Amino acid sequence: MSLKPCAHRVAYYETDQMGIVHHSNYIRWFEEARDDVVRDYGIDYRQIEAQGVLMPVVHVSCDYKRAAKYGDQVSIYAFPRFFNGIRLRYEYEVRGEDDTLIVTGNSEHCFIDAVTRKPVNLKKRMPEYCETLSRLVEQVNGGKE
Amino acid sequence: MSLKPCAHRVAYYETDQMGIVHHSNYIRWFEEARDDVVRDYGIDYRQIEAQGVLMPVVHVSCDYKRAAKYGDQVSIYAFPRFFNGIRLRYEYEVRGEDDTLIVTGNSEHCFIDAVTRKPVNLKKRMPEYCETLSRLVEQVNGGKE
Amino acid sequence: MSLKPCAHRVAYYETDQMGIVHHSNYIRWFEEARDDVVRDYGIDYRQIEAQGVLMPVVHVSCDYKRAAKYGDQVSIYAFPRFFNGIRLRYEYEVRGEDDTLIVTGNSEHCFIDAVTRKPVNLKKRMPEYCETLSRLVEQVNGGKE
Amino acid sequence: MSLKPCAHRVAYYETDQMGIVHHSNYIRWFEEARDDVVRDYGIDYRQIEAQGVLMPVVHVSCDYKRAAKYGDQVSIYAFPRFFNGIRLRYEYEVRGEDDTLIVTGNSEHCFIDAVTRKPVNLKKRMPEYCETLSRLVEQVNGGKE
Repeated sequence: MSLKPCAHRVAYYETDQMGIVHHSNYIRWFEEARDDVVRDYGIDYRQIEAQGVLMPVVHVSCDYKRAAKYGDQVSIYAFPRFFNGIRLRYEYEVRGEDDTLIVTGNSEHCFIDAVTRKPVNLKKRMPEYCETLSRLVEQVNGGKE
Repeated sequence: MSLKPCAHRVAYYETDQMGIVHHSNYIRWFEEARDDVVRDYGIDYRQIEAQGVLMPVVHVSCDYKRAAKYGDQVSIYAFPRFFNGIRLRYEYEVRGEDDTLIVTGNSEHCFIDAVTRKPVNLKKRMPEYCETLSRLVEQVNGGKE
Repeated sequence: MSLKPCAHRVAYYETDQMGIVHHSNYIRWFEEARDDVVRDYGIDYRQIEAQGVLMPVVHVSCDYKRAAKYGDQVSIYAFPRFFNGIRLRYEYEVRGEDDTLIVTGNSEHCFIDAVTRKPVNLKKRMPEYCETLSRLVEQVNGGKE
Repeated sequence: MSLKPCAHRVAYYETDQMGIVHHSNYIRWFEEARDDVVRDYGIDYRQIEAQGVLMPVVHVSCDYKRAAKYGDQVSIYAFPRFFNGIRLRYEYEVRGEDDTLIVTGNSEHCFIDAVTRKPVNLKKRMPEYCETLSRLVEQVNGGKE
């Protein structure tokens, strides 16, 4: 399954004095891309928060192959790879205009209650959303069972 | 009255490809400095939010005289100039190691209820805090009446 | 003349714990929008830097009417209002999906040599670019040829 | 060897609408801390750039145990663990006021020429700096002379 990447024009404020995008910004772009990929699939993260569930990041990792520069039109691919109601794992690729690989990365997320800040099993709390997300993960993984 | 400035070492991530601090960061430094100046005076902004009051920015302005650079040790002065329970106005100066003026600026704030998002008269809601803040403004303004 | 606004989806990382966009980000959005408006007109700011000219901000100001929120699709309008080869002035409007005014602002820029960091008269250094920019300003101001 | 941590007061602009520090900021704090740790040891990263050498990040990783909050006074520990003139590896710990572990992380860096952007062996380019850095790594790793 080919997911539509998130399109991002590199802003001047994202550069540093090395003349390239500051490395912390890719972590932010990952966030943009995972919002987009589920939105394309009918899931709005705002609705999850509206139901009192937060999705904090528990791990993030990024490998820098090349540098994006000011004005570049980059494509951020977010692949949801694993989801079991407790944990969600994404893999990322940022690519340049000529499809060159700029960075790869991944992130892991858990689900907590906005008030108690205790872990939540999303399968109990938001079964419909879980269904959709599981199906998306399956498709991304090329999954036929 | 001479207020203690907020000390800030310019971080690499605050620069842009012009080789200087990106202009948006001074707006963030103003925030650090106004937190510090009241903290020195016994007011913790966290306590204000804990009582259900938010202090959004309604205006901000900044004039750039010189550029701060990576590694610079700058001093951010926040002068609370006006406060009437409804509005709060700060003026700022950012100065370099040799006291050179880098930027000047000002900001205006109102007070709203965290839940209703409606304006709040802080004199009614937090009279003690208002007393302290008014005294601070008076002193900053050199105040004798 | 009606300029095409810059489209921006509010990212999660642009919010603060007040639950709204942190006020410093609008200053960054202004930058995105002034890049876009000249790009639509055939001017790429990268070419200006490639010719050894930088365009630092000398003043910025912002008035906050309402708050943009995570997930909002906002439109950022940048109107180049004044340009004489030495100074360039922009005015901005950020509007919500229903066209509600969220913030207004303005910024002023000068031009300096990337090496000497001395002021540059762009009319001498980049006459063609100046021609284009002047024409854009004229049109924005309702000018008729 | 016990290194002095970098002290950082969490700013309001570092929070997001989850009410905690946005996860991308820890990556920025790591940068502050690695600047500090070598500065304490007499190495100023500005001097490295002044000699035409840049130190881009090639990998970064972060594990989030707890959340830092607005107003928290955190300590950021940067441990230089490996250095061979080509690669430099840091490990990090961010700790709260009561020494609770908030995040752990690591980063890897290479060295490139600022003009050619080609890899540089720092042992040839800046032997004295390499000596100092190697000694620091040795001490951090418990090395005895």
